[in-house]
Amino acid sequence: MAQPISRYPVPELNALPADIRDKMLQVQDKAGFIPNVFLTLAHRPDEFRAFFAYHDALMLRESGLSKAEREMIVVATSGVNHCLYCVVAHGAILRIYAKNPQIADQVAVDHRKADITPRQRAMLDFAVKLARIPESMIEADHQALRDAGFSDEDIWDIGGITAFFALSNRMAHLISMRPNDEFYLMGRVSPPKK
Amino acid sequence: MAQPISRYPVPELNALPADIRDKMLQVQDKAGFIPNVFLTLAHRPDEFRAFFAYHDALMLRESGLSKAEREMIVVATSGVNHCLYCVVAHGAILRIYAKNPQIADQVAVDHRKADITPRQRAMLDFAVKLARIPESMIEADHQALRDAGFSDEDIWDIGGITAFFALSNRMAHLISMRPNDEFYLMGRVSPPKK
Amino acid sequence: MAQPISRYPVPELNALPADIRDKMLQVQDKAGFIPNVFLTLAHRPDEFRAFFAYHDALMLRESGLSKAEREMIVVATSGVNHCLYCVVAHGAILRIYAKNPQIADQVAVDHRKADITPRQRAMLDFAVKLARIPESMIEADHQALRDAGFSDEDIWDIGGITAFFALSNRMAHLISMRPNDEFYLMGRVSPPKK
Amino acid sequence: MAQPISRYPVPELNALPADIRDKMLQVQDKAGFIPNVFLTLAHRPDEFRAFFAYHDALMLRESGLSKAEREMIVVATSGVNHCLYCVVAHGAILRIYAKNPQIADQVAVDHRKADITPRQRAMLDFAVKLARIPESMIEADHQALRDAGFSDEDIWDIGGITAFFALSNRMAHLISMRPNDEFYLMGRVSPPKK
Amino acid sequence: MAQPISRYPVPELNALPADIRDKMLQVQDKAGFIPNVFLTLAHRPDEFRAFFAYHDALMLRESGLSKAEREMIVVATSGVNHCLYCVVAHGAILRIYAKNPQIADQVAVDHRKADITPRQRAMLDFAVKLARIPESMIEADHQALRDAGFSDEDIWDIGGITAFFALSNRMAHLISMRPNDEFYLMGRVSPPKK
Amino acid sequence: MAQPISRYPVPELNALPADIRDKMLQVQDKAGFIPNVFLTLAHRPDEFRAFFAYHDALMLRESGLSKAEREMIVVATSGVNHCLYCVVAHGAILRIYAKNPQIADQVAVDHRKADITPRQRAMLDFAVKLARIPESMIEADHQALRDAGFSDEDIWDIGGITAFFALSNRMAHLISMRPNDEFYLMGRVSPPKK
Repeated sequence: MAQPISRYPVPELNALPADIRDKMLQVQDKAGFIPNVFLTLAHRPDEFRAFFAYHDALMLRESGLSKAEREMIVVATSGVNHCLYCVVAHGAILRIYAKNPQIADQVAVDHRKADITPRQRAMLDFAVKLARIPESMIEADHQALRDAGFSDEDIWDIGGITAFFALSNRMAHLISMRPNDEFYLMGRVSPPKK
Repeated sequence: MAQPISRYPVPELNALPADIRDKMLQVQDKAGFIPNVFLTLAHRPDEFRAFFAYHDALMLRESGLSKAEREMIVVATSGVNHCLYCVVAHGAILRIYAKNPQIADQVAVDHRKADITPRQRAMLDFAVKLARIPESMIEADHQALRDAGFSDEDIWDIGGITAFFALSNRMAHLISMRPNDEFYLMGRVSPPKK
Repeated sequence: MAQPISRYPVPELNALPADIRDKMLQVQDKAGFIPNVFLTLAHRPDEFRAFFAYHDALMLRESGLSKAEREMIVVATSGVNHCLYCVVAHGAILRIYAKNPQIADQVAVDHRKADITPRQRAMLDFAVKLARIPESMIEADHQALRDAGFSDEDIWDIGGITAFFALSNRMAHLISMRPNDEFYLMGRVSPPKK
Repeated sequence: MAQPISRYPVPELNALPADIRDKMLQVQDKAGFIPNVFLTLAHRPDEFRAFFAYHDALMLRESGLSKAEREMIVVATSGVNHCLYCVVAHGAILRIYAKNPQIADQVAVDHRKADITPRQRAMLDFAVKLARIPESMIEADHQALRDAGFSDEDIWDIGGITAFFALSNRMAHLISMRPNDEFYLMGRVSPPKK
Repeated sequence: MAQPISRYPVPELNALPADIRDKMLQVQDKAGFIPNVFLTLAHRPDEFRAFFAYHDALMLRESGLSKAEREMIVVATSGVNHCLYCVVAHGAILRIYAKNPQIADQVAVDHRKADITPRQRAMLDFAVKLARIPESMIEADHQALRDAGFSDEDIWDIGGITAFFALSNRMAHLISMRPNDEFYLMGRVSPPKK
Repeated sequence: MAQPISRYPVPELNALPADIRDKMLQVQDKAGFIPNVFLTLAHRPDEFRAFFAYHDALMLRESGLSKAEREMIVVATSGVNHCLYCVVAHGAILRIYAKNPQIADQVAVDHRKADITPRQRAMLDFAVKLARIPESMIEADHQALRDAGFSDEDIWDIGGITAFFALSNRMAHLISMRPNDEFYLMGRVSPPKK
């Protein structure tokens, strides 16, 4: 509860540059709270801006990967990197996009046992390998994705998301970024029927 | 020579958005050539912009770390990640900043044997550990850096650069980014005295 | 939903030896459902009986470790062993014993970042090391636990639970044991106040 | 000689529950001495009973694996887990069952170089992988065993023995279980011809 | 019995250069048989000569390490390198030098559990680390040996033997060098009293 | 500059046995300087003689491997062993033999990205595997080399060079062998045309 959300000072909303504050208010508007990744990274405004620009460039673009598939990559690679913030926060987003309350726990713990398609399995095999042993990637790994039906642009998406969360996981470990309480339950329970 | 510099198409300079082309021409003006990281990542303009904004935010800011020290982090972590592009390109930059033709090879192969100060050794021990086993970072690792004289902001710089090149190394492995020929020799030979 | 819960045949309740069926009905009575570890391991009645006798001997005995602490060991070591069944099922039990809806996700992903006491941190450091690199255990590891206030009998409990779930995790991986749907949400939401 | 056989107290035979004492006397009758695994684990009678019940369920049942093959699994997996007690004690049993004085040393050090059949080689490849990296097991590993002629029940035996000795190895490391002197030579020299 | 002792042709004694044949006959005279390392490496006479010159330079010189201690290094490092030939052959020699029928099995499987002195434990900790992760050696590792009473020349001996058997283990793996049957039992049974 | 080239005393040239001094003067004559491996290993004349006899037996013999290919093996395996001396010194020799100023950096950092033939790629895959995980070598690894066109004698060369530099890398790590300044630039710049 009273646990710090970062090893570093967390700026007051009022003290932030307007563009950063606005971005936070937008996400608060949509999600009902401000995810701690915004609050904690705002300690360095320039890095904040680049971080979210990169994130959005990968996660919001048109792609052969669905939004749920992109979050699967985040959750699986953050799982093998043992990154609490990303597993909990992106696990919540994955549950919502996939409309599946179990998928995030499955993918975070062992993507090989998850309820996913063979295509998604190939995607996560590639991502997890790139996340942990980047030098081991060879042409055969790319071919396996092409054989599973991915285009070369899809492969860039898979690798790019993995690369971006390699950065993100390390920042979270560096500053001991703490997930918001809200994420733990999101997408696990159906909203009451109207 | 005729080797491709990326698995992906490399855009023509003329076909690029103006801001990206301008950035390339600036660097060409300064360095005498366009490093392949610019040419190859330009395949995705939005990611390109975020990538270099992030890079510049970390590498150009005021810091308790010298520019040579920041490049040491890049070279050491890219070494343990076996990233050819980053070792060769940033090795060149490190040689120039450090005015030392041997330091890059030393740091890339084994930072424990390099001609660096104990403070720099502590910095690279931290960076290399975060690069390869991010989950293993504990409070004692931060304390070791404080004991070596680094401030908490310096530690963010060390961790942030490591995190950014975790991304960068994976992008280079993903697309098989090839270093420009020019980098191999830069900073190894003294310019002729005038 | 219609996913198999084991690679192996799952016996009908009626076809089981009476003692095994009784044990299942008891747990069903208490929990409201039969955890799949009972149903799937019943394929081999003798191993079933030994498995649960061992489990109960460790998990139900008087101990210097609380029941929540014992489940923490299960969840942390199953996390590093990437065992979906044990993380999900024992995560649920941990949440309930600890009356803490977040603790299981924290301990499963990265016990170093979990909201636990220094004593519990020492306990999980020992358990995780024994789980993954058993040959690395040396006298200093035992001493660290004694320094944290554990008795030698407590250390047997910590090691014994780790050892038992080394077995359990491997059985779950072997047969692709699937967690019951019920576990995912247990202990995450407060029961309605009466 | 005067070396302790456990970090923990070893109970007097007379102080033990009758069923445990009886089991020890039986094994003494048969083997000529009481293996230290009995004496040391008797410190916790309930765990002792479950341990040997589990052991016997796997090692004494009817199986598509010969008794020598089952001991091979014990020795190979205990070898990669660097468990002295199990390598020495079960190495002795393997030599006797296989009537081969060299097989245990071969399997303990490097099963890939041992004088075993291709079928046994496949069995030990599976076991050693499950022993050290349980999360890496995939359907292809099961298929490789089926291709080598093993039934699904045989595979359960292979995996179950590996899992049980994952527990056993960790208990031996935990308590520093010392092999009896007798084991070192058993099965290495032919008994005098009658 | 009829198993090949190398993947490569084994030369006839008569076909060998005189110096190599003489060396073999000398060892046969002393040991009663020709160890397979002589027979198999003789396939390349120049490498054979250098190999045994190096071996003898390290293993026969005056040293602060006893002959038994030097064989302990061979057995411990060959154990972590899973080298069957060296564990079996040098295990035999170690048993004889140490006049201890158990020491070789202990050191090969887990030197941390072996009946050795703290000084020998420090020596094997250093050797095993150098054998498997040579880049990890730092000044503190040397200091630990000095603290245990070793001179710098002793440390060269420890490191040199480890280095030489890093070569030897790899040659044995490369050619599938098979231990002579005789080694398995040597030093395990006392010779009949005269 | 004034950095020590070894943790151990470096003998004066005049104090050395004649054969060793002669060998040094010969290499100085040819190379223009005495590589530090000669000066530092001369601390132990017998080991020195065996070391260079072994080196020459492998590196100077008639072989199906070109001299450049042999140096590639040295550089690639020394790269994964993080051996500064061997990467820098043999990198220089490789550049000269291959008449390629980039090849050494490529092979040292990541042989999978180097400008080499498929045959050379297979050769280095084998060497790097043998260098780091010698027990993992199986018949399929030999077959892959035969499929790439190597004879069994070539495979001995590949394995033998890898084995010898496993020794060499560990000696360099042990004594902190420092590369001569001259090596860093050798083969990087074309000599002036005559």
